[in-house]
Amino acid sequence: MTTSISGTVNRQCRLAARPVGMADPGCWTYTDEPLREPNDGEMLVRVRYISLDPAMRGWMNDSRSYVPPVGIGEVMRAGAVGEVIASRHPGFAAGEHVLGIFGVQEYAYSDGSGVTKVDPAVAPLPVYLGALGMPGLTAYFGLLEVGQAKAGDTVVVSGAAGAVGSVAGQIARIIGCRVVGIAGGERKCRYLVDELGFDAAIDYKNEDVAAALRERCPNRVDVYFDNVGGEILDAVLTRLARGARVVISGAISQYNNSGPMRGPSNYMALLVERASMRGFLVFDYADRYGEAIREMAGWLTGGKLKSREHIVEGLETFPDTFLKLFTGENTGKLVLKVADA
Amino acid sequence: MTTSISGTVNRQCRLAARPVGMADPGCWTYTDEPLREPNDGEMLVRVRYISLDPAMRGWMNDSRSYVPPVGIGEVMRAGAVGEVIASRHPGFAAGEHVLGIFGVQEYAYSDGSGVTKVDPAVAPLPVYLGALGMPGLTAYFGLLEVGQAKAGDTVVVSGAAGAVGSVAGQIARIIGCRVVGIAGGERKCRYLVDELGFDAAIDYKNEDVAAALRERCPNRVDVYFDNVGGEILDAVLTRLARGARVVISGAISQYNNSGPMRGPSNYMALLVERASMRGFLVFDYADRYGEAIREMAGWLTGGKLKSREHIVEGLETFPDTFLKLFTGENTGKLVLKVADA
Repeated sequence: MTTSISGTVNRQCRLAARPVGMADPGCWTYTDEPLREPNDGEMLVRVRYISLDPAMRGWMNDSRSYVPPVGIGEVMRAGAVGEVIASRHPGFAAGEHVLGIFGVQEYAYSDGSGVTKVDPAVAPLPVYLGALGMPGLTAYFGLLEVGQAKAGDTVVVSGAAGAVGSVAGQIARIIGCRVVGIAGGERKCRYLVDELGFDAAIDYKNEDVAAALRERCPNRVDVYFDNVGGEILDAVLTRLARGARVVISGAISQYNNSGPMRGPSNYMALLVERASMRGFLVFDYADRYGEAIREMAGWLTGGKLKSREHIVEGLETFPDTFLKLFTGENTGKLVLKVADA
Repeated sequence: MTTSISGTVNRQCRLAARPVGMADPGCWTYTDEPLREPNDGEMLVRVRYISLDPAMRGWMNDSRSYVPPVGIGEVMRAGAVGEVIASRHPGFAAGEHVLGIFGVQEYAYSDGSGVTKVDPAVAPLPVYLGALGMPGLTAYFGLLEVGQAKAGDTVVVSGAAGAVGSVAGQIARIIGCRVVGIAGGERKCRYLVDELGFDAAIDYKNEDVAAALRERCPNRVDVYFDNVGGEILDAVLTRLARGARVVISGAISQYNNSGPMRGPSNYMALLVERASMRGFLVFDYADRYGEAIREMAGWLTGGKLKSREHIVEGLETFPDTFLKLFTGENTGKLVLKVADA
């Protein structure tokens, strides 16, 4: 890559205001900043694909969480894959491909912390934001470590056509569970069963979820991998098996509430069924990412695991594209394409 | 004991109607049934003390739980201690004292299932309904097994002046935790600190619980032993430490709701803090009751653990006395005294 650095402008999307409810266009502002050569110990990355994740909505709030909120005026935080175009970092060389928290912008400087090299010969770059990236790792550790899923279990996954849910359900199938996915709309439900091999699907937009769970989970639910919270979490709680594990991976139905979150009214099912509900963050498993990625890459190349990305082009579309996560428009991993190779 | 069986009447309190909200007097009816000699394999027990427990409110509802509901017209289910007055059961002899699910009545027939002998020389009979009974066992296994409390942990207990909470907090103190109890009213709070040795107390009726938790749990909360649910559960969730364990032992604030339960809106704290919420039933530890009772009896006789019973006399007072559980009138274990020795 021989981009001339001087004279090139870095287009950046910054947080302009904290949202109340859905993030409207007024939350964002774009700036242009001239590139400079990387400092000693830094690399400069040309961002190629940006990951759009429900968790980003939480980072926009000024409240305590596992990471500090994005400050007003700061470049919006986001995971991304890109190519090193200049480096004064001893561990990275121009031409290498990298995954990191590069933000919603065309170029990023990095001192290498939290940056991983990726190989576009093993999988296309967007897959490193999906099945072989944070969503895949979240699915892997959430299902196997937090949920302790094992062959023969009935596993229910919500947000099942999304980036995390689609991988969680497929891993459950691969290890020999009965897998029921909950998603919105007939098209997504067909995708789960016909393309991803789920045993059954429940269309929460057109079915009574509680009734469908009774029918499609005759042996009740051993592991519930929850990405959505709200009414669906409450419905699944009424169908837990003895000793069930509820894995709290997300609560997308609640992220744009301007009022309080809706808590699970049926949580006393945890007592009746001697069940547990556990939250987790994938970062806590960082020392085991390698083993997980190797195993999932094996499943991918062996055709057992499918990764699907929903790619939208253009940094300028970010404010609109981000909202697709919450309106349910994406199937699979939502990715913003910023630059061609 | 030489009670003449023929000619003696057994006064019984039966469930007449299912309550909506608080159990009003119309829920109950009293009947008189002549005693008969026990059948082969049966014993006849003179009930001395009846245990009044929040869980009994749940048994009155016609809904799925860990035990079937009490049927309309049936003697109300309740734990009790009494004396065997006649026996054709090979394992029990007249004059022995026993603990079992004998119901809200003066006499009970039993085939011995679920019946344990107790020794009034080790502890007064009501203690077998409190610290050495189901409440004590619930506290013991809930805190140590489900909550995995260990020396140095900050443990918060709600319903802390109640039968389960007062024992849970004392066990936490005994094993070296910092213990903060939540209870209603200054008198109960003083009792926790001055008599039971809690490190601090929070009076939820007169204090802002969230603010008090910030002050009295400077290192946040490692184990929350929850007997109450509702707003207090939500407040504690905002103060969880990394890896905290929330033990769901009960939700007394919600048992008389005629509408839906209030779920914990702040449950996503489980994700942020990688925490878990787990329900349990003490019955699952039945094979370890012996070891627990031995350890707790040692603490009792050594003066480390105090058992306090709130004793009300008279089977006829049951409908009113039962409500004290929900109005917070009892400190310690609420017991109905039915008969003198």
